[in-house]
Amino acid sequence: MTTRPLEGKTVIDLTTALSGPYATLLLAGLGARVIKVENPTRGGDTSRNNSPYVTEGGLSLSRTSDDDMSVSMMLRGRGKESIALNLKDPEHRDVLLDLIKSADIVVDNYSAGVTKRLGIDYETVRPLNPKIVYTSISGFGATGDHGDRKAMDTIVQALSGVMTTAGEPGEPPVRFGLPVGDLVAPLFAVIGTLSAVLQAEHTGEGQHVDVSMLGALTSLVACEPFDALESVGFPLRTGAYVPRLAPFGTFRAIDGWFAVTAPTDQFSASVLKAIGRSDLLGGAEFGSRDARVANADRLHGLIAGWAAERTLNEAMASLSAHGAPAAPVRSTAEAVRDPDVQQRGEVVPLVHPKFGHFDGLYGSGLPVVFSGKPSDLSGPAPKLGEHTDAILRELGYDEERIASLRLERVG
Amino acid sequence: MTTRPLEGKTVIDLTTALSGPYATLLLAGLGARVIKVENPTRGGDTSRNNSPYVTEGGLSLSRTSDDDMSVSMMLRGRGKESIALNLKDPEHRDVLLDLIKSADIVVDNYSAGVTKRLGIDYETVRPLNPKIVYTSISGFGATGDHGDRKAMDTIVQALSGVMTTAGEPGEPPVRFGLPVGDLVAPLFAVIGTLSAVLQAEHTGEGQHVDVSMLGALTSLVACEPFDALESVGFPLRTGAYVPRLAPFGTFRAIDGWFAVTAPTDQFSASVLKAIGRSDLLGGAEFGSRDARVANADRLHGLIAGWAAERTLNEAMASLSAHGAPAAPVRSTAEAVRDPDVQQRGEVVPLVHPKFGHFDGLYGSGLPVVFSGKPSDLSGPAPKLGEHTDAILRELGYDEERIASLRLERVG
Repeated sequence: MTTRPLEGKTVIDLTTALSGPYATLLLAGLGARVIKVENPTRGGDTSRNNSPYVTEGGLSLSRTSDDDMSVSMMLRGRGKESIALNLKDPEHRDVLLDLIKSADIVVDNYSAGVTKRLGIDYETVRPLNPKIVYTSISGFGATGDHGDRKAMDTIVQALSGVMTTAGEPGEPPVRFGLPVGDLVAPLFAVIGTLSAVLQAEHTGEGQHVDVSMLGALTSLVACEPFDALESVGFPLRTGAYVPRLAPFGTFRAIDGWFAVTAPTDQFSASVLKAIGRSDLLGGAEFGSRDARVANADRLHGLIAGWAAERTLNEAMASLSAHGAPAAPVRSTAEAVRDPDVQQRGEVVPLVHPKFGHFDGLYGSGLPVVFSGKPSDLSGPAPKLGEHTDAILRELGYDEERIASLRLERVG
Repeated sequence: MTTRPLEGKTVIDLTTALSGPYATLLLAGLGARVIKVENPTRGGDTSRNNSPYVTEGGLSLSRTSDDDMSVSMMLRGRGKESIALNLKDPEHRDVLLDLIKSADIVVDNYSAGVTKRLGIDYETVRPLNPKIVYTSISGFGATGDHGDRKAMDTIVQALSGVMTTAGEPGEPPVRFGLPVGDLVAPLFAVIGTLSAVLQAEHTGEGQHVDVSMLGALTSLVACEPFDALESVGFPLRTGAYVPRLAPFGTFRAIDGWFAVTAPTDQFSASVLKAIGRSDLLGGAEFGSRDARVANADRLHGLIAGWAAERTLNEAMASLSAHGAPAAPVRSTAEAVRDPDVQQRGEVVPLVHPKFGHFDGLYGSGLPVVFSGKPSDLSGPAPKLGEHTDAILRELGYDEERIASLRLERVG
């Protein structure tokens, strides 16, 4: 197979910040051409102005030259082209409409209502291109009565209930440092987009695909029947251990932490052997799941006591020698450097368009290994407006019109 | 539009537990016919044996009759058909191969290597149906040298680095109660599947789609340049507050918690007004982002002090009256009952095939609102083997063969 799944498809990318750009990044990785529309009067995508920056001399808190690029943009802009358009200017809006006429997909993450005010919403562009798939990511969705309520990731985490799934009962809510609200919505947006494109190929009709950050994260929360579990006595917040699956949890070795997940008879026996307590095998206290749940505190205490006198390597060696499911708790820095993960392209080196790869800087890959042509997120991000002229020429605009649009600050 | 995106497509579902069944649940929601293959000698999908169960009298820790169904299966089995096959039996394996001949998609979540041992891997079935898209979800992917290493969600969380993105520096790792490892891999599996189906429509060629739980979650971790941020002095673990975005974090009111995310000048001014400190507006201490970062502790302290003397409703009323981005921290039970979220079908009531909706039991919807025909996850889950005979008849098997297969414990 010599092509990637979305080769030949064009995406008009009206997104900014994280959630929308991550969706179009994945589409680029799948082979689509992504044309990123950026407002030059505001410095383009807000990610361009997130510290830190990669400069010729390395990472810096602030920009030192025009060639410097924020790490956020290096990550999220990969493989995209940039055209600078101020959509409040009617002439520039017309350029966008021309682009949409021959595109397959539009993605936006404006607050609900903004595309309508700009005259670029689905209902407006549909007559120009009935096959277009137009995907909107917003905080609370295009329906409902949320107005332009702000939906930063932490707001969505708070409303979705996820903050109460970590920690112990009575403890403060736990904010996850990974912005799951920002990152999960684009995954559903890509699922919706691909589904609608597949349908459009058959019917010739596109549609609007509307994804809410709150809805996306809450739907994941609703994948676990937390209510039902609590009502039969399995509390949601159990801290480091999960007594109903004992032995199960995170344990501290001398120089680090590890996780153990051994809810079955077989695995819990492996754990007992690994911690040198074969004498307890087959005994009434830990011999069955019910018994282990009833004696979970003692079982977890035995493992914790054993771990406290061993290095992480010693603990892991003994657990894996006995076939007990266990793993070290890694830092994010260790995790993104996992050789298998890098070899599979799930994490890839980041490349600055001028300075190349800055040692130690990695970004997300597309974590799908196709037996056909592999996905690709190895390219650099564009400078603001880098492709403006080329794209306008492709639209068939003459040099005069291009010059006039440029005067109007297209790029 | 009168059809859903995947209507007319058939998925052969070889998955069990959470990660795989969630992928095929989403495909069912998109309109595909999902035929779930379950091993009757082991009681089918392991989710069928997860306590609690919905019984005629309500939730119960254990089964009371043959009609009882686990909440996990009610959630994950929705809209699927069930055929009981023991794939270690060559006759039953032949039934599976017959099913695959006329299907579009296969999804499995066996440990790497198992499909090959069973003689049902992609390379084996491809000659029977070159257009088939065969998606595998495993702990560490089909490549690499992980053998049948177990990858429960907590193991994947530990290895991916996410456990070190919450809490304070030096604190123990934080396990997220939401099984993000189990839930993120299927989203990428669906993205890979839809991409490959789209390509197969054009080329007539399917392919193998290989998704690793560790790779999927680690790729999300790599969406944030944690390393780069740390190396310029923005620590990863900052607990309840994020000083570099101050005012930003979770605060305790008298009767609950709320989140504030106000990193811009405009939003931070709204917060100061909301907490009755207009006197500080425009002052040197909090007037610019740099100043707020430098004085973050005091700024967060002022908000915390104000919050401590107010109810959650009072605090939220004042913050929203002044346009400050804020939201209450909700429990998972509150979150899944959000009327807007339910109205958008992002969370839906769960239905028992015999007892109907059990009040208060909700499950994930498909959080994509299509302007065409809506997705649908409202149907019940099947009993183990419920559709065995009907599916065998559809394959054109005569009653004698069906009876003989049934003797061999097909269902």
